[in-house]
Amino acid sequence: MTDYSAGAAWMNGKIMPIGQASIGVLDWGLTHSDVTYDVVPVWRGGFFRLDDYLDRFMTSMAELRLEPGIDRAGIRAALVQMVAASGLRDAYVAMVCSRGAPIVPGTRDPRYCANHFFAWCVPYVNIIPPERVAEGVSVYIPDDIHRIPEDSVNPRAKNYHWGDFTQGLFAAKDRDFDTVLLTDHAGNVTEGPGFNAFIIKGNRVVTSDHGVLHGLTRRTAIEMCQVEGFTVETRPLPLTEFLEADEVFLTTSSGGVMPVARVNDRLFGNGAPGPQGMALRDTYFRWMEREDFRDDIPYDS
Amino acid sequence: MTDYSAGAAWMNGKIMPIGQASIGVLDWGLTHSDVTYDVVPVWRGGFFRLDDYLDRFMTSMAELRLEPGIDRAGIRAALVQMVAASGLRDAYVAMVCSRGAPIVPGTRDPRYCANHFFAWCVPYVNIIPPERVAEGVSVYIPDDIHRIPEDSVNPRAKNYHWGDFTQGLFAAKDRDFDTVLLTDHAGNVTEGPGFNAFIIKGNRVVTSDHGVLHGLTRRTAIEMCQVEGFTVETRPLPLTEFLEADEVFLTTSSGGVMPVARVNDRLFGNGAPGPQGMALRDTYFRWMEREDFRDDIPYDS
Ligand SMILES: Cc1ncc(COP(=O)(O)O)c(C=O)c1O
Ligand SMILES: Cc1ncc(COP(=O)(O)O)c(C=O)c1O
Repeated sequence: MTDYSAGAAWMNGKIMPIGQASIGVLDWGLTHSDVTYDVVPVWRGGFFRLDDYLDRFMTSMAELRLEPGIDRAGIRAALVQMVAASGLRDAYVAMVCSRGAPIVPGTRDPRYCANHFFAWCVPYVNIIPPERVAEGVSVYIPDDIHRIPEDSVNPRAKNYHWGDFTQGLFAAKDRDFDTVLLTDHAGNVTEGPGFNAFIIKGNRVVTSDHGVLHGLTRRTAIEMCQVEGFTVETRPLPLTEFLEADEVFLTTSSGGVMPVARVNDRLFGNGAPGPQGMALRDTYFRWMEREDFRDDIPYDS
Repeated sequence: MTDYSAGAAWMNGKIMPIGQASIGVLDWGLTHSDVTYDVVPVWRGGFFRLDDYLDRFMTSMAELRLEPGIDRAGIRAALVQMVAASGLRDAYVAMVCSRGAPIVPGTRDPRYCANHFFAWCVPYVNIIPPERVAEGVSVYIPDDIHRIPEDSVNPRAKNYHWGDFTQGLFAAKDRDFDTVLLTDHAGNVTEGPGFNAFIIKGNRVVTSDHGVLHGLTRRTAIEMCQVEGFTVETRPLPLTEFLEADEVFLTTSSGGVMPVARVNDRLFGNGAPGPQGMALRDTYFRWMEREDFRDDIPYDS
């Protein structure tokens, strides 16, 4: 039996160990970062909100005029078969559509390329280690690096343009912060490498509607907050307002809800994770097992 | 004998046909566009200004904190051997350094990744077909897509963040223009997918110093203009000033100097390539054969 313990990939209708999955060096997915992707979590043997993630992926492809050469049902089946073959019960599952290489030799016209779909899965990823979340996450907000603006690259079509995040991560790690969060050019808080950001202030919860990916965990967090009786506002979130919050938390498919204990030199909750954020974190992991959000995976064994 | 007619690649010390060169789907060069590159032309069997291109590549890597695991002399030797093996006499030669994948499993810390260098070459590329250059290139400048700003992604470290260009190219091609040129968020002309832009107005030549890659063909063009007696200014170039130029031309290692005959609905030189731009184009191809700029390639046959 093939060892898929490190993860599996689906390419051109075949499932393979992840180490064998590669793309050519001329693929515009690499050479122009002309590619979109999505990441859906698998938790305790089931996909979480798979159809919502597929909806977002289909929208991203349409916005970027990428044609995967496989329909939605085919993508869904590929993901299910790949994860089933991998045996992974908690997984990070990526679906990708790349522009590919030109079909008209030498052309620089993005309309004439061999777009292609592939997928891969690895064991569940926590972008911040759970031990650090338990202690309280620290976030660095630089004042000299800003999120790529919407009228340069559309953040709602999930993309790999992470140059701003990568430089921000270096700045954060050099200063011993867990991660980085970027403001836009007008001083509003946007998002970080792999997550959205929220504040809690009294009975209100605020997250940006602008310059960010519309995270699915963001959506789940909004729904959880509404159930809890918070008033939820999605609108530009000025940094000054952000720093005056009662609590701050981050949301991601790769780790759920993560309360923040420090932003630059400002401590929240005396430097410990906030109780409301921690409660939302617990609720999120319970919702991950909700029947109405789940698609069970037909593993062989 | 291996057929390298479509191009060759150098990876991990081995030369291979380009179709065999690939990178893993988990490589941050793909998944975070965390990669830098450079492209040096080979013309009539020799590299053009190879040391200047190598200087830029070394600087890009340092700025992005990428360590290729091979020194400058090794990179130079890899490029020479690869092009010699390919037999290509006119070539587009790419050198690439990618962040690679994490060496600490699961980390999101860019300091702990297995950075790697590779290279590839294909027959010489003209980003705009020479027939179109002879007729006069048409350029579309959209008003709703702007170049990624410097404080989001540093344009001087040559990078694959082309989302703004790709959307611009779709807009241009849909309207039957040859290519796209982007303004920054303050209304200055920056650069396009693979080229810098210049204007000629009287005895002055102007090109942007801001929000752009410092193209090596831009440098060659500046030097040629100085030899011709023009006053050269490198500074922000407002779109209004750009549209009032006598002539406009583009510069790129993949096609040289390309005079522009139309920008949006504004014709230059009645819609034909300008005489001064055409003269610079000819000079560029002559300079490509200058002994002091050349490194001859030791082909086998
Ligand atoms: C830039 C960015 N923002 C936000 C998110 C969070 O989105 P989701 O909750 O759907 O994982 C991600 C996830 O990778 C992301 O890359
Ligand atoms: C964004 C961008 N600007 C300008 C240029 C022109 O640079 P060079 O003359 O060194 O080829 C390129 C070349 O690829 C480029 O990608």
